[in-house]
Amino acid sequence: MHYYMPTTVVMGDHCIFEHRSRLKELGNKVLIVTGRNSAHANGSYADLVQALNANGQTHCCYDQVMSNPTVDCVFAAAELAREEHCDGVIAIGGGSPIDAAKVAAALAVQPVERSALFSSVFSRALPMAAVPTTAGTGAEVTPNGVITNDAAQTKTSVASPALFPRLAFLDARYMQGLPRRITINTAIDALSHAIEGMLSVRSSPVSDALARASIRAIADCFTALEEETPGHPIREKLLWASNLAGMVIANTGTIAIHAMGYMLTYFRRIDHGRANGLLLGRYLQRVHAQDTRRIQDILAALGIPDLETFTETLDRLLGIEETGEAFDAAELASYADRASQAKNITNSVIPPSRDALLAVFRESLFSPSRNSMPKPPQSLSP
Amino acid sequence: MHYYMPTTVVMGDHCIFEHRSRLKELGNKVLIVTGRNSAHANGSYADLVQALNANGQTHCCYDQVMSNPTVDCVFAAAELAREEHCDGVIAIGGGSPIDAAKVAAALAVQPVERSALFSSVFSRALPMAAVPTTAGTGAEVTPNGVITNDAAQTKTSVASPALFPRLAFLDARYMQGLPRRITINTAIDALSHAIEGMLSVRSSPVSDALARASIRAIADCFTALEEETPGHPIREKLLWASNLAGMVIANTGTIAIHAMGYMLTYFRRIDHGRANGLLLGRYLQRVHAQDTRRIQDILAALGIPDLETFTETLDRLLGIEETGEAFDAAELASYADRASQAKNITNSVIPPSRDALLAVFRESLFSPSRNSMPKPPQSLSP
Repeated sequence: MHYYMPTTVVMGDHCIFEHRSRLKELGNKVLIVTGRNSAHANGSYADLVQALNANGQTHCCYDQVMSNPTVDCVFAAAELAREEHCDGVIAIGGGSPIDAAKVAAALAVQPVERSALFSSVFSRALPMAAVPTTAGTGAEVTPNGVITNDAAQTKTSVASPALFPRLAFLDARYMQGLPRRITINTAIDALSHAIEGMLSVRSSPVSDALARASIRAIADCFTALEEETPGHPIREKLLWASNLAGMVIANTGTIAIHAMGYMLTYFRRIDHGRANGLLLGRYLQRVHAQDTRRIQDILAALGIPDLETFTETLDRLLGIEETGEAFDAAELASYADRASQAKNITNSVIPPSRDALLAVFRESLFSPSRNSMPKPPQSLSP
Repeated sequence: MHYYMPTTVVMGDHCIFEHRSRLKELGNKVLIVTGRNSAHANGSYADLVQALNANGQTHCCYDQVMSNPTVDCVFAAAELAREEHCDGVIAIGGGSPIDAAKVAAALAVQPVERSALFSSVFSRALPMAAVPTTAGTGAEVTPNGVITNDAAQTKTSVASPALFPRLAFLDARYMQGLPRRITINTAIDALSHAIEGMLSVRSSPVSDALARASIRAIADCFTALEEETPGHPIREKLLWASNLAGMVIANTGTIAIHAMGYMLTYFRRIDHGRANGLLLGRYLQRVHAQDTRRIQDILAALGIPDLETFTETLDRLLGIEETGEAFDAAELASYADRASQAKNITNSVIPPSRDALLAVFRESLFSPSRNSMPKPPQSLSP
């Protein structure tokens, strides 16, 4: 077993300005990597620029990161960092800008061919800070940048200890305006990270401690998420819960659920957190047939008596947008084929067969609460 | 709030040899810092030398660290590192060799006058690995080296982020021969770290998650500790629990309990973990009068219904060695005076007054199970 998470995490309202002196370790000039709008709307961009100015640091900005960042986007950001002679990188946003910034920070000092991006080993990167503006990915404390891989028709993780941000600033004020739907999808993403970490072959007593705390905190917020747009205390709880879950997957990686979810995101543009949430309940029901102890451990952290209740809760939180009828058999078979090749599969304590993956896709998308075709729970082996 | 713990932690039987390639980052020649006997008796020294030899790394050894390491000892080890041109340091032992090695690793590259040791700021140190051979201090994941400070007549912590070991190897086989008494004292030290972390002004959701898991694991071992010499599964559980507790105090620091315990250790040579354990129950009883919520959180993690039961459990585990009659009033008054000056006091969520410290000393050492003079629980304020 193994544990490593070297990022300095700073938490609290106005933490960027309060701890601005820490930004000096990124150097004289930094590249800010973000999306087009949200960093301006939620105040994080202004806070960061104020802190940099107070430090006498200059900056330039790449603000073209879209959801599910592309290879083009990370190469463009890296190119800008080189042209502008940036000493460090600061990402603001959800998982996409943070993931893009990590890979750009590596490419800025270790250029590779586009075709070699997913096979390259990055041993260094510009020093980096991350300011999450959603409470979901935990990317601010992981060594992974997940990039859309069109050659392989999925999302692929570029991973290296060099990609850990040096600094993460967690200020829940930036989430205050997030719509309920994004809040739920990102919270479910974090929940999936924590749960997947407990079902990973790389779980450890440290990762399990962090995972249980994360699961408990997110489950504590379920009622608030169902009923209303959350206020600041709930936002803050979800933010540190997603951060804990990020520390978990930084060490355990994700498992089959993410491999399956990437299919729904790549081919159907279903939001990443939502995609995981659609699959999570039925996947756990299959694990339960083979590993009752771990599932009981997860249920205890959730404070929920059984997986059926948990699955219903997820369905209620996520609502119905896509139904089984939208997916034909050949499409789901192709997703199962592709997902079964992902390395996340062998990272699962009970590696699911291709047929088990197909069954989880079918049970999840054709669930009783969505339409027809209920299936009895079965195991993950063929 | 703030969290940082950059050490890579590797766990498991034979983990030094299995992960020996990681030792290469310490450089060509390393100084091994340890005590006189235990590293040879428990097999850790041989395992380490085998791994270094397999890597083609050379080593020399400073094996004169005693319990509660002295200023002389850390300067001697640093001198040896310089004379032998060592590139890195590896500590094997309980808290004393690890603490001594940290400070020696700093002094090796940043020499200071003896008189300036406790006032110096260390910005760098030789890269270091730690191999704990007791399950207590968690020093393998903290940025502190606690050294006997004769000028101030206490133990004083030298602290700097540069003192975090790069690597920690956790192999419970090295604890197998530890006597029951050392096993208990060190386990109670770890328990005190986790509990103190939850009562620190610097606690965070991350440190609390780690602390609860550590407390729960140690409390799970109470029965085994009362009844027998623990076997390997209990040893391993205590080892990672002490490691989690180390991650806690790396971020929260310790509080008044450690400040008081140092008095009993410095002036009475009472073992460090035992000293904390003697004071822990009655200290918590006083906190309870002012902060019920945190105490309930700690009791829930302990799985123990009330503080009286917890205090009795500690008394039973520690046994009776010193009684109140051995301490006169002037002596305890002097301990309270000194402890009230320690910086750990202001690190406590409810900073105890000097009189409250004196009362905890008296209640702890003159407890009903020790001899006479029971006192009703009171608050920490005067």
